[in-house]
Amino acid sequence: MTKGEFELISEIKNRFGVEKKNLLGIGDDCAILPGKILVTTDALVDGVHFLSDKTDFADLGYKSLAVSISDVAAMGGYPQYAVLTMGISQKVSDAQIAEFIRGVSEIKDEFGFEIVGGDTVKSDTLFISVTLYGKAYQSPFLRRDAQDHDLIYISGSVGDSAIGLGRILSKAPLAVEKPDYFLKRHYRPNARVKLAHYLAKNEIVHACIDVSDGVLGDLSHIAKESGLGFFLEMNELPLSKSEIGEENLSGNEEEFYRLALTGGEDYELLFTVPDALNTKKIFEKTGVKLTPVGMMREEGREIRYFDQKIPAEKIKSGWTHF
Amino acid sequence: MTKGEFELISEIKNRFGVEKKNLLGIGDDCAILPGKILVTTDALVDGVHFLSDKTDFADLGYKSLAVSISDVAAMGGYPQYAVLTMGISQKVSDAQIAEFIRGVSEIKDEFGFEIVGGDTVKSDTLFISVTLYGKAYQSPFLRRDAQDHDLIYISGSVGDSAIGLGRILSKAPLAVEKPDYFLKRHYRPNARVKLAHYLAKNEIVHACIDVSDGVLGDLSHIAKESGLGFFLEMNELPLSKSEIGEENLSGNEEEFYRLALTGGEDYELLFTVPDALNTKKIFEKTGVKLTPVGMMREEGREIRYFDQKIPAEKIKSGWTHF
Repeated sequence: MTKGEFELISEIKNRFGVEKKNLLGIGDDCAILPGKILVTTDALVDGVHFLSDKTDFADLGYKSLAVSISDVAAMGGYPQYAVLTMGISQKVSDAQIAEFIRGVSEIKDEFGFEIVGGDTVKSDTLFISVTLYGKAYQSPFLRRDAQDHDLIYISGSVGDSAIGLGRILSKAPLAVEKPDYFLKRHYRPNARVKLAHYLAKNEIVHACIDVSDGVLGDLSHIAKESGLGFFLEMNELPLSKSEIGEENLSGNEEEFYRLALTGGEDYELLFTVPDALNTKKIFEKTGVKLTPVGMMREEGREIRYFDQKIPAEKIKSGWTHF
Repeated sequence: MTKGEFELISEIKNRFGVEKKNLLGIGDDCAILPGKILVTTDALVDGVHFLSDKTDFADLGYKSLAVSISDVAAMGGYPQYAVLTMGISQKVSDAQIAEFIRGVSEIKDEFGFEIVGGDTVKSDTLFISVTLYGKAYQSPFLRRDAQDHDLIYISGSVGDSAIGLGRILSKAPLAVEKPDYFLKRHYRPNARVKLAHYLAKNEIVHACIDVSDGVLGDLSHIAKESGLGFFLEMNELPLSKSEIGEENLSGNEEEFYRLALTGGEDYELLFTVPDALNTKKIFEKTGVKLTPVGMMREEGREIRYFDQKIPAEKIKSGWTHF
């Protein structure tokens, strides 16, 4: 297998391309079916997306759904029905499965959707495959609808999941004040359905994506699909400063901002709007902080870190599994 | 992992049970969403459901969808949209992926549905997970709606897939006249959408299931869900007699009938009706042969083979992967 994930998706998209009115196929966060129905699917594989021997199975159950709910939120929608398939290896215990079901149950109750089906199969490699069926509150937000001069906003904070992952994988992780916060951000990401609801009902959103590949990678998806470039201020990216701690931050500032730019799996919303938002009011209504971090441009991918210009091409952009 | 698949499904069903009006959840071939929408999901795993080193990847692509289309047919519906996830191991070549896509493409064109999304992930074990959305032509056929004295019919022929699988796995497979026919029946099962369409529009069907676990296992699902028993004539099961060959059949008759009773993955429809069908007319309209093989009863599971009675409990019933 020599092709990357994006290349393969692109090949499948070309082969099966189904872009009709009201029926947007492969290539956005969700497919759109008639009736503003959103469909998305995600798989988590042991050894690739998680390490079963280091993972609490309740967290795994929660996250298996959270990543798909985030895709639905990124299209401006909410989850309604899910089907869940588990490939179960011999080393998984009944107790772990019970924990997994508990985690699924928690996120189901939190977001109020139904689990309507599934399949359980034996597999040498543990995997979970979820398909989620949701509905857009209004016209779905697409990646391709950004416009020149749109402002770019990010919800919550970014880089957190990568900091958490570093604590799991690295022998010398970045020092932070509240390590558990970052582990939780990695294992139990917030899907931004409430924010999506507010934005869909009250604001003009042009393009939206959830931060799964990393801010740079995901913003690049929006730019590419919209035929545009962008300007991004890396030092404006919203870090979890108080959880990092002032001293830790000042010792490794650029490293933290780089994680915020390239770290995947934050599952925040990254979106573009034609006009500045009243972020204070939106915070009051949704409890979610929004931060402007840049602007869409006709072309180019310019990243600034204080007074430095960093060519986007020099930055490893996002996760590529293959 | 010590629990069987059915036990685990039952546990998940109890935990997430969602049986509302118009919303039938886990436990039938498909979930039913409002608007007669059918949703089904199936996973195929290397080493469990197929052997990648003995499988043509075009066949694998075809079958990955066929098994889900068959689930939709079993509920009296047709496929509309599919999402397809592949967990791809290092040993899978680009050429094999191209072949896989060709097989998916063939069945997509045959049944006229759309591939609207998917995910490709790296995995040590190759797997395919498909979720299919369909629509019921009329009220969906359920497993639980069989009634006492219903006649039991089976479409096409059964045991074929097991004979084909025997040719792949066994060093001394059963001798048959046309081995390629049985391999094709195993690798490229017919999903009975056309028959489902005809039955939904023209006949009263009480309960229906597709033969994936084997006739005995699947009929037992109908009986259990309907709170009934059955009487089945094993020697009436429709064998592919001309493809087996007269001499081969007479030498191993009971073995062939046992495979017809217990072999999985035929993907024929097994259904119950209150009155005898005009099978000649249905064959003229759909090209599918129907065979009456028994009757639903108030209780008990009676199997007869010519003048022998075989207690159902003594027969290994269906596949249990775990």
